[in-house]
Amino acid sequence: MTVEAALQYLESQHNALIERLRDFIRIPSVSAQKSHAEDMHCCADFLMKTLTDMGLQPRKMPTGGWDVIYAEWLEAGPEAPTILIYGHYDVQPPEPLEPWTRQPFDAEIDEGRIWGRGSADDKGQIWTHIAALEAYFRTAGRLPVNIKILIEGEEEIGSDNLPGFVQQHAEMLKADAVLISDTSQFAPGMPAITYGLRGLCYLEVRVQGAKMDLHSGGYGGAVPNPIHALAEMLAALHDADNRVTVPGFYDDVTPLQDWEREAWSKLPFDEAEYIKMLGIQKLQGEQGFSTLERLWARPTLEINGIFGGYAGPGAKTVLPCWAGAKISCRLVPNQKSADISKKLENHLRALAPETVSMTVEHMAGGEPSAFPTDHPWIKAGERAISKGFGREPVYTRLGGSIPIVQLFSETLGTPVVLLGYCHPDCGAHGPDEFFGIDEFTAGARSNVFMLDEAAHIPSV
Amino acid sequence: MTVEAALQYLESQHNALIERLRDFIRIPSVSAQKSHAEDMHCCADFLMKTLTDMGLQPRKMPTGGWDVIYAEWLEAGPEAPTILIYGHYDVQPPEPLEPWTRQPFDAEIDEGRIWGRGSADDKGQIWTHIAALEAYFRTAGRLPVNIKILIEGEEEIGSDNLPGFVQQHAEMLKADAVLISDTSQFAPGMPAITYGLRGLCYLEVRVQGAKMDLHSGGYGGAVPNPIHALAEMLAALHDADNRVTVPGFYDDVTPLQDWEREAWSKLPFDEAEYIKMLGIQKLQGEQGFSTLERLWARPTLEINGIFGGYAGPGAKTVLPCWAGAKISCRLVPNQKSADISKKLENHLRALAPETVSMTVEHMAGGEPSAFPTDHPWIKAGERAISKGFGREPVYTRLGGSIPIVQLFSETLGTPVVLLGYCHPDCGAHGPDEFFGIDEFTAGARSNVFMLDEAAHIPSV
Repeated sequence: MTVEAALQYLESQHNALIERLRDFIRIPSVSAQKSHAEDMHCCADFLMKTLTDMGLQPRKMPTGGWDVIYAEWLEAGPEAPTILIYGHYDVQPPEPLEPWTRQPFDAEIDEGRIWGRGSADDKGQIWTHIAALEAYFRTAGRLPVNIKILIEGEEEIGSDNLPGFVQQHAEMLKADAVLISDTSQFAPGMPAITYGLRGLCYLEVRVQGAKMDLHSGGYGGAVPNPIHALAEMLAALHDADNRVTVPGFYDDVTPLQDWEREAWSKLPFDEAEYIKMLGIQKLQGEQGFSTLERLWARPTLEINGIFGGYAGPGAKTVLPCWAGAKISCRLVPNQKSADISKKLENHLRALAPETVSMTVEHMAGGEPSAFPTDHPWIKAGERAISKGFGREPVYTRLGGSIPIVQLFSETLGTPVVLLGYCHPDCGAHGPDEFFGIDEFTAGARSNVFMLDEAAHIPSV
Repeated sequence: MTVEAALQYLESQHNALIERLRDFIRIPSVSAQKSHAEDMHCCADFLMKTLTDMGLQPRKMPTGGWDVIYAEWLEAGPEAPTILIYGHYDVQPPEPLEPWTRQPFDAEIDEGRIWGRGSADDKGQIWTHIAALEAYFRTAGRLPVNIKILIEGEEEIGSDNLPGFVQQHAEMLKADAVLISDTSQFAPGMPAITYGLRGLCYLEVRVQGAKMDLHSGGYGGAVPNPIHALAEMLAALHDADNRVTVPGFYDDVTPLQDWEREAWSKLPFDEAEYIKMLGIQKLQGEQGFSTLERLWARPTLEINGIFGGYAGPGAKTVLPCWAGAKISCRLVPNQKSADISKKLENHLRALAPETVSMTVEHMAGGEPSAFPTDHPWIKAGERAISKGFGREPVYTRLGGSIPIVQLFSETLGTPVVLLGYCHPDCGAHGPDEFFGIDEFTAGARSNVFMLDEAAHIPSV
């Protein structure tokens, strides 16, 4: 039986797979730093060799930035479903280095973990997929489904070139589902499938008073101060129950479902621990919802930045002529980014006192998404993880947005299954990043099962 | 008669005095720019020569920065009053140069004006005093009063070394009154005596939420946002009537006097023109007071700067861990700077929600001041200007603070008479600065009368 053989391969080749993953992690492929350009090429070459060695014909495909590594295997035939596996080979800068207690690019093994920048985000997790593919190729000589693999090198710098790439190669990338392992478990030993993401709208508002900065002594008390106006406007954006006051803001919100409330209430979320970790006095959010509900299922409005007047050291007695703020909303199904952005602008215009003029610039936006948890691809993921980890995954949503998910889901119209294998406190983007060896093992096993499960889902 | 002779000297030497003033203006004594160090020395030497030529023994006195030029003539005797004349020989940088329609250091004469950086602020105005002294020395060979002259070179960069200098030389600088011509007429042809200045207290407040910046997707809606807290606090600092809500803020305010309300209401202040000049929709200030009253006689609270989160280009989805603001109050007699600063801090602490922690840093401060308009030295100024300009001066207060005035008035305990001769729109600190030739003439004449008037005030 092919699944058994593949699992056995993972077991027998365990040490070799771990050693090669360590080689992968040792390449400091920091996309943000020009000094690592050679390492970025070297890391791409490492993946080229890895994919070539398992019998694929990978390609380095140019973008406006770092190359995309792409490979496909379509010999399962047109009747079999096609899976697109996404990952990224670039990593965050390790800096600042002081807080690290390990060398960021030594890939040291200790306490059952591989330590290093990129070990969890995303090299270790993409390696679970590579290991599963290799296990099938080296045993059965084939896969149970068609596979496309896209590993980019710009995720940590915003994936700026990916939307163009995906649009340009939409036909090539066509698939029945996208698998991504770039999220985490909900708690250690509790792998998660993320089925919902919040959307986003983002705008910058500026209010203008006088046409030039003024001396606060010569004009203060008689001339409108745009910081005062802005503070009043911003203070009016939430009511006493911490609900957003933008008219119509909640009109289209898909209410939280009973099973979600119930399931989430049972997740091991320690509010006291969370407060301590954040170093805050207390939590604050929309009345009537728990913290996870506020983060996963409710729309929010946050001021991301505010500026106006003098911000340097010491005292400057200026009455500034303008002030501004960056404001974003996290959106949930079935809100529309452009609609909320417009409603927010209208509300700000209504709040702006007549003493100032106001301009708005609409910026980044993205739609919220949620895949039904009974979707055949999600269900396949659930069964695969159950077998791979020996326990059912939990269903989580994400407070943030993953633009790549929205990109695949909107541009390709493909369901995206987010299989989170790494530790929730894995240190991604921070010091002492790690990937557990047992997480690698269970993740790779889950992926073997996933390919098998996928073979039983009819292609669309 | 000595006054007549002095006036005649001004008339007969008019062209020569103007030519020498042009020489003075042509020296680009920009204290802020190191590249003008040689010019600063050259300008100090110009004054040394000027004062020497009229028979004084001026000294270049070192400070931590640019030299002070100091001279004194005490031969009027211990029974006669002593006047300290203050001015500054440094000028603002002329940059940006684009808006200038004249060369900033050519001292061109056109339209009855001398055009150039520093022509009004303060070279032209200090020159009116030098001309008056010279007129007496060259005609009577003596002055009717004792004179001390202090001309500093750091006024445009904050007079950082002057407080130390004045304290160190308090005995040397002892005088019955200080005369300063560094303010302006209220309107063209309407010379002004400024008898009141607002004081200042200034603080920076910071509110802190979580101990680190957070992702607004991952935490937004559940974790306190310090920008929200700050906006609420700042919005609560004024009520609907634009009165400051700090408890006890107005307790010690000396009420506006009837004669001030009446006199100011008759000043040619064109509100429509003012609004147009500022480019604002409408004025805004404390209910129940006119614009001049708000600016001159009422205390204010202004936010001078606000900052927190992301202020760069584009969108960053950060939930910042802190935000801050710089807040200052302009104070009027009989408020105390430290008292209001403390009351403001207490009020902010009361307004801060329990979701954030708050710190306050108290910064610059200064007491308000007002000299009674029936003070003998003020009255002497009124008579001098009446004769010099052929019309009575108007009594004005200033919305701002002049630290030098407070320095002299507090350190030396001396009344300060502010004789404003230049045009209210003279371009000080901006492009196309000018000093009217008739302003020079009337100012110098007023100063001749002032020295004569001063001789009749008993020394204290």
